[in-house]
Amino acid sequence: MGMTITEKILAAHAGLDKVQAGDLITAKVDVVLSNDVTAPVAIREFEKLGVGKVFDNYKVVMVPDHFNPCKDIKSAEQCKIMRDFARDQELENYFEVGKMGIEHCLLPEQGLVGPGNLVIGADSHTCTYGALGAFSTGVGSTDVAAAMATGEVWLRVPESIKVVLKGKPGKWVVGKDVVLALIGKIGVDGARYQALEFTGDGLEHLSMDSRFSIANMAIEAGAKNGIIAVDEKTKEYIENRLKRPCTVYESDADASYVREIEIDLSTLKPQVAFPHLPSNTKDIDDVGEVKIDQVVIGSCTNGRMEDLRTAAAVLKGKKVAPFIRLVVFPGTQDIYQQCIEEGLIQTIIEAGGAVSTPTCGPCLGGHMGILAKGERAIATTNRNFVGRMGHVESEVYLSNPAVAAASAITGKISSPEEV
Amino acid sequence: MGMTITEKILAAHAGLDKVQAGDLITAKVDVVLSNDVTAPVAIREFEKLGVGKVFDNYKVVMVPDHFNPCKDIKSAEQCKIMRDFARDQELENYFEVGKMGIEHCLLPEQGLVGPGNLVIGADSHTCTYGALGAFSTGVGSTDVAAAMATGEVWLRVPESIKVVLKGKPGKWVVGKDVVLALIGKIGVDGARYQALEFTGDGLEHLSMDSRFSIANMAIEAGAKNGIIAVDEKTKEYIENRLKRPCTVYESDADASYVREIEIDLSTLKPQVAFPHLPSNTKDIDDVGEVKIDQVVIGSCTNGRMEDLRTAAAVLKGKKVAPFIRLVVFPGTQDIYQQCIEEGLIQTIIEAGGAVSTPTCGPCLGGHMGILAKGERAIATTNRNFVGRMGHVESEVYLSNPAVAAASAITGKISSPEEV
Repeated sequence: MGMTITEKILAAHAGLDKVQAGDLITAKVDVVLSNDVTAPVAIREFEKLGVGKVFDNYKVVMVPDHFNPCKDIKSAEQCKIMRDFARDQELENYFEVGKMGIEHCLLPEQGLVGPGNLVIGADSHTCTYGALGAFSTGVGSTDVAAAMATGEVWLRVPESIKVVLKGKPGKWVVGKDVVLALIGKIGVDGARYQALEFTGDGLEHLSMDSRFSIANMAIEAGAKNGIIAVDEKTKEYIENRLKRPCTVYESDADASYVREIEIDLSTLKPQVAFPHLPSNTKDIDDVGEVKIDQVVIGSCTNGRMEDLRTAAAVLKGKKVAPFIRLVVFPGTQDIYQQCIEEGLIQTIIEAGGAVSTPTCGPCLGGHMGILAKGERAIATTNRNFVGRMGHVESEVYLSNPAVAAASAITGKISSPEEV
Repeated sequence: MGMTITEKILAAHAGLDKVQAGDLITAKVDVVLSNDVTAPVAIREFEKLGVGKVFDNYKVVMVPDHFNPCKDIKSAEQCKIMRDFARDQELENYFEVGKMGIEHCLLPEQGLVGPGNLVIGADSHTCTYGALGAFSTGVGSTDVAAAMATGEVWLRVPESIKVVLKGKPGKWVVGKDVVLALIGKIGVDGARYQALEFTGDGLEHLSMDSRFSIANMAIEAGAKNGIIAVDEKTKEYIENRLKRPCTVYESDADASYVREIEIDLSTLKPQVAFPHLPSNTKDIDDVGEVKIDQVVIGSCTNGRMEDLRTAAAVLKGKKVAPFIRLVVFPGTQDIYQQCIEEGLIQTIIEAGGAVSTPTCGPCLGGHMGILAKGERAIATTNRNFVGRMGHVESEVYLSNPAVAAASAITGKISSPEEV
């Protein structure tokens, strides 16, 4: 029996010819990522190990993106621990404020992750890089500490679910809708400790940015990783960008899957996830009248060029409704610059939106757009748990950037067709 | 005996032919300003008065600029109080996130303040508008509450100090240096409850933006207000911008002053105020080796076009030093847009700086750049009191934007001549 792409990457990094679901392996890591929430914990644990230097000062990557530029003294102390460590360890891939972006937008953009790589990160959305045909997964800070010392991680090889995407999506349907629809179908634990492998002819209609959104939210179905095999779009993306060795794998025809799920993109509508789970999805047509107070466009899920181009296209020549806050977070400084070059930032400001420096911001209730009691936001982010963006009595609805932008104009959750 | 410009404005608003220093008057206000820190207090007090509507829904101005986009649940609750009030009272000049800027940059830009106006605001830097030949001063939230109800304020007419600016400043000397030098000379209580009236041939070499910086920091010498008579530059600034009636006043030749101070701009060096008072000033040449961790460019003192043009000119083609954070805050959305149009934002990002949406940010220890224990910042802001920007054991040095930008490049407090 053959192997899935996930199994092949894990086998290669474990120095084995073959692995199968359920195997316990020790694998070499290509990137070990942490941020300003998790790095300080990982650093403390790393220092207890007494090994001195990290195993590789290129592969240990740190991005202080969560509460930065620092929102308070506590976050400043966290960032200082990280900065001091990066300086002492001479980390080549520590990204200071000003170079900093949202980690999962930044690493692919900077060419630090490529096909066939094995990435672990002390952040649940580390699974994003599966869009590049890499195995990447979120782990605990102590796992990161151990990997910073040894360059290795212990893993159980996950079973795989095959998600077959068919057909061509309509104008306003993007990767976010695909993954929301999937989570709506299988639930937030529908892929627990499994690999979500996306395949099918529908993929050719999904941009790399859409694919990053899909892989990014694999964790919201409980998956260990999300993964998409390399194609021409992937190759184009990594060309002149990727700074590390990579290997292109694909699943064997006789690889084993525990389940197959089909999603027809041609009939898929933009999705909205209602509070308080990403799986509470509805078609945009079935949303009804839901007034909102705030709109957030950005995050590691939807802070890339396709997202901001779409948002700006919807906002162009329109105005944000009175008393509605629209806050936009480009994923990285390069994205920010590109948005300026294309006039997108100008369009957003002209429409009455606020544009922040790249940061995770309010996505995790951090800063730059926290909700008061009783307030409601629609966001292109990834989680709408109770209190996720502020007060426990606030609500978050998840959508794609077109729906979010349209909602900013009308003041209620709206289809881009309506504005 | 004649009157000063300050006395003339106060007399006109009190319906009197003449007032003199020490008189107690009740004066009509043209603008009553509050922000997200002070408005909730003012609103609570206003509601106790039981008058229903504010005296004028155009003149009551609210700008939620301090902790916005909201840094936490508490600030979100504060902003909600303000937003609900603005909606109920149909305030024409409430500025939501996205339209919001730093209040003291925003009001002049939006044409809400002009020569001869009387402005009170529940923010100490309300004195900024003196640059337009207006009387403007910071008051308590309860004074704002009373004025929102009655349209009047009780004031004691201040004595005036005449500050004569002579000569032409050198390349890197701007309004910020003038006012820092003045505060260094007279101390933080050197003008307590007095009007600082700036005059002299040196004024013609100072842009409106430089004059806003000067008037803005009058409070840092304890002044009730700072004021500069209208000239051609003022007229040019308000043309096609000012939306309210105004009257141009000037001091009589025989007006009375308690003191006269002369500052020779031709020999003035860029100033740096050392911790922990704005009066601890040194010439840039005398600063010595002071390493820094963070650079902040922006604020109601220095977040205008002249400031950002200068900062970008210094940064152009250079890079922010490793591990140094440069955070730049344009004063308003219009300034932000103009900066993009002129390529300044692009230059700042290219150099490795972070650009925030307009907000007060870290100036008052709010958010977006708070300091950890032992950290040191140079900032174009207005106060360097103990713990002003974060931890009580952090330090803030104040300077003009050119010095701040140069310091970001070198990692220590530096003259723009050095980079």
